[in-house]
Amino acid sequence: MSLMPPIEYDAASPAVRAVYDDIMATRRVPSVNNFWKVLAHDPVQLARVWSQVKDVMGEGALDPLVKEMIYVAVSVTNNCEYCIHSHTAAARGKGMTDAMFHELLAVVALANATNRIANGYRIDVDDRFRDPLAK
Amino acid sequence: MSLMPPIEYDAASPAVRAVYDDIMATRRVPSVNNFWKVLAHDPVQLARVWSQVKDVMGEGALDPLVKEMIYVAVSVTNNCEYCIHSHTAAARGKGMTDAMFHELLAVVALANATNRIANGYRIDVDDRFRDPLAK
Amino acid sequence: MSLMPPIEYDAASPAVRAVYDDIMATRRVPSVNNFWKVLAHDPVQLARVWSQVKDVMGEGALDPLVKEMIYVAVSVTNNCEYCIHSHTAAARGKGMTDAMFHELLAVVALANATNRIANGYRIDVDDRFRDPLAK
Amino acid sequence: MSLMPPIEYDAASPAVRAVYDDIMATRRVPSVNNFWKVLAHDPVQLARVWSQVKDVMGEGALDPLVKEMIYVAVSVTNNCEYCIHSHTAAARGKGMTDAMFHELLAVVALANATNRIANGYRIDVDDRFRDPLAK
Amino acid sequence: MSLMPPIEYDAASPAVRAVYDDIMATRRVPSVNNFWKVLAHDPVQLARVWSQVKDVMGEGALDPLVKEMIYVAVSVTNNCEYCIHSHTAAARGKGMTDAMFHELLAVVALANATNRIANGYRIDVDDRFRDPLAK
Amino acid sequence: MSLMPPIEYDAASPAVRAVYDDIMATRRVPSVNNFWKVLAHDPVQLARVWSQVKDVMGEGALDPLVKEMIYVAVSVTNNCEYCIHSHTAAARGKGMTDAMFHELLAVVALANATNRIANGYRIDVDDRFRDPLAK
Repeated sequence: MSLMPPIEYDAASPAVRAVYDDIMATRRVPSVNNFWKVLAHDPVQLARVWSQVKDVMGEGALDPLVKEMIYVAVSVTNNCEYCIHSHTAAARGKGMTDAMFHELLAVVALANATNRIANGYRIDVDDRFRDPLAK
Repeated sequence: MSLMPPIEYDAASPAVRAVYDDIMATRRVPSVNNFWKVLAHDPVQLARVWSQVKDVMGEGALDPLVKEMIYVAVSVTNNCEYCIHSHTAAARGKGMTDAMFHELLAVVALANATNRIANGYRIDVDDRFRDPLAK
Repeated sequence: MSLMPPIEYDAASPAVRAVYDDIMATRRVPSVNNFWKVLAHDPVQLARVWSQVKDVMGEGALDPLVKEMIYVAVSVTNNCEYCIHSHTAAARGKGMTDAMFHELLAVVALANATNRIANGYRIDVDDRFRDPLAK
Repeated sequence: MSLMPPIEYDAASPAVRAVYDDIMATRRVPSVNNFWKVLAHDPVQLARVWSQVKDVMGEGALDPLVKEMIYVAVSVTNNCEYCIHSHTAAARGKGMTDAMFHELLAVVALANATNRIANGYRIDVDDRFRDPLAK
Repeated sequence: MSLMPPIEYDAASPAVRAVYDDIMATRRVPSVNNFWKVLAHDPVQLARVWSQVKDVMGEGALDPLVKEMIYVAVSVTNNCEYCIHSHTAAARGKGMTDAMFHELLAVVALANATNRIANGYRIDVDDRFRDPLAK
Repeated sequence: MSLMPPIEYDAASPAVRAVYDDIMATRRVPSVNNFWKVLAHDPVQLARVWSQVKDVMGEGALDPLVKEMIYVAVSVTNNCEYCIHSHTAAARGKGMTDAMFHELLAVVALANATNRIANGYRIDVDDRFRDPLAK
């Protein structure tokens, strides 16, 4: 169903293989997902997207597991089947338990509901939230 | 701009005041946000939504700050102005730093981008993600 | 803030006035909304969109009030501020009470929540729903 | 494909069975849908979501069939495959004819189109829609 | 999986056949897609939607290929599987190369990302963008 | 309303100024938009997002004006007010006429409508679209 077939490692160009190698080394996995194998049809975009993912999802101010769960929350809201599968698996690999996954979906559901309540009534933002320096 | 004016505490019915009181006690705040004051036009819905928020956002398998950030991630994806303001404030109140907020938005942006790459190429879900018992 | 200024009746071309006249006659109102006044910059699109609205929202298998509420439900889900205001007003003009509006938003919120629960768990469609002839 | 397998009645805990029993009794059906069987992995969430659905979708200011059609409208806008199937079936069970379903989708399509026209031109909300007490 | 089976030419009413004939003649194709065959259950809607598509997607101020790519961009953002397939095929038929398709998806991904950055920080629109006559 | 105040050139760090300088040089403009001034609170993200925008929106397989219009199409679909303003202005700067803008919005509206028709009826993708090598 994919609009372009995955490019396997053996059939990949040196530029593509270099990205695959970096993905496998960074994630300590023996192969790359279909996402990267399809993106490989455009080696420049492949390198750019991987670079972003590596930068954004690596060590930082937020825990890597928290980032994966945020990724799942967005993917569920947008209904990206591929991303829900791959990032739920990634989150589990980083320690997400069943109970955490259930709670994650409960928060996502609640936020999607209250987003519409706030938008539907056109509720005015409280003045105290509007000060850009307020924290 | 709100389609219904906020109902202040002094003008609220006993049923509405009971919910306001519980919100203030639970959150240890001296007043409730416009969200609740507008929802108060429908006391049954007010009580139901507050009950859900209290249940879902309270103590559980996930850290309360993590839940607030997931809430922000969904609200940003859906572009709910009210919810972005109120839950960003709530997250800050629970310890979200500037660096964490920047990183949160970077993950949200990345997920929204890659969701479309995966959907646009119609990338097939890898077989290893499809086993319902796989973790 | 509008990217193009509204075109008032007095300044409109005969083709645009003909559409304005039909809108006012059909709806029995003394003027047209900003939506039409901005769309009037493209008289062909103005006529096409009005024709669709007239066809779809007029008498049919569904009650006109039900159609307006469906319109509001979609507009709230997509967060279209303009459409929420205009179609909520239209629904009220056709008999929507406060209680009906609250309930409408409660259904919209619930559907937005459960949409994400179903998508998040990737719940399989029950076999009995898949038969195209099943009713 | 579901991330968690459905929990059948025979394998369910007493708490889960109690919810299943209430669903079957309320809806007068001999079994529950996959939605509930997957949600059953989190009995607390199962009970909460069912309680909401029961409260919101039952008798009220809006006709139950109208509520189901609003549910379908939201689910189509968000593209929730599961919910489109289940709530279209529910709406048919409550009397939605083919003609009504076609018209429902025509309204949903029109609203999704005009939402973008209003947003794309950034059309200003008419002053007369902004009065919170206006009906 | 379709909620209604496609209506083939041989089984179609004269009114439906007239639309099918016009689609085939306009597009110089030997058959019509499933989209039209399902829409044919509502001949009035079939004729209306085809009329819109013919008007909007035909010759105009924008190149037909550009219009198809805009169609793909929207369909990818909304994750409409059917429309991604059909309009990607249409764009290819009008000259879209692999390189153009990759670039299209890169722009779509970027826009989806920066939309959330702008919304997440609630960035104020620059004054110079707000003048309705500014071009 | 912005959650963080814009950082003006004079108050910016050398790292931020370097990005501002590159934006102004690349676009041949005398200042940068609020988008960059707010993103500047996170210099690393500022540099990364600008790098992406520069790479994706520059010369390539698609005309720069076409890319801006695709950007507008996505932003309208998602209802990002900021991005609609800034990218409509950018598209006008690259030659988009009023007639082209009207047509762009007509295509965006049509695609948003037919996306829901296809999803609502769950229309099966035609077999001929499913071959990954078909073009």
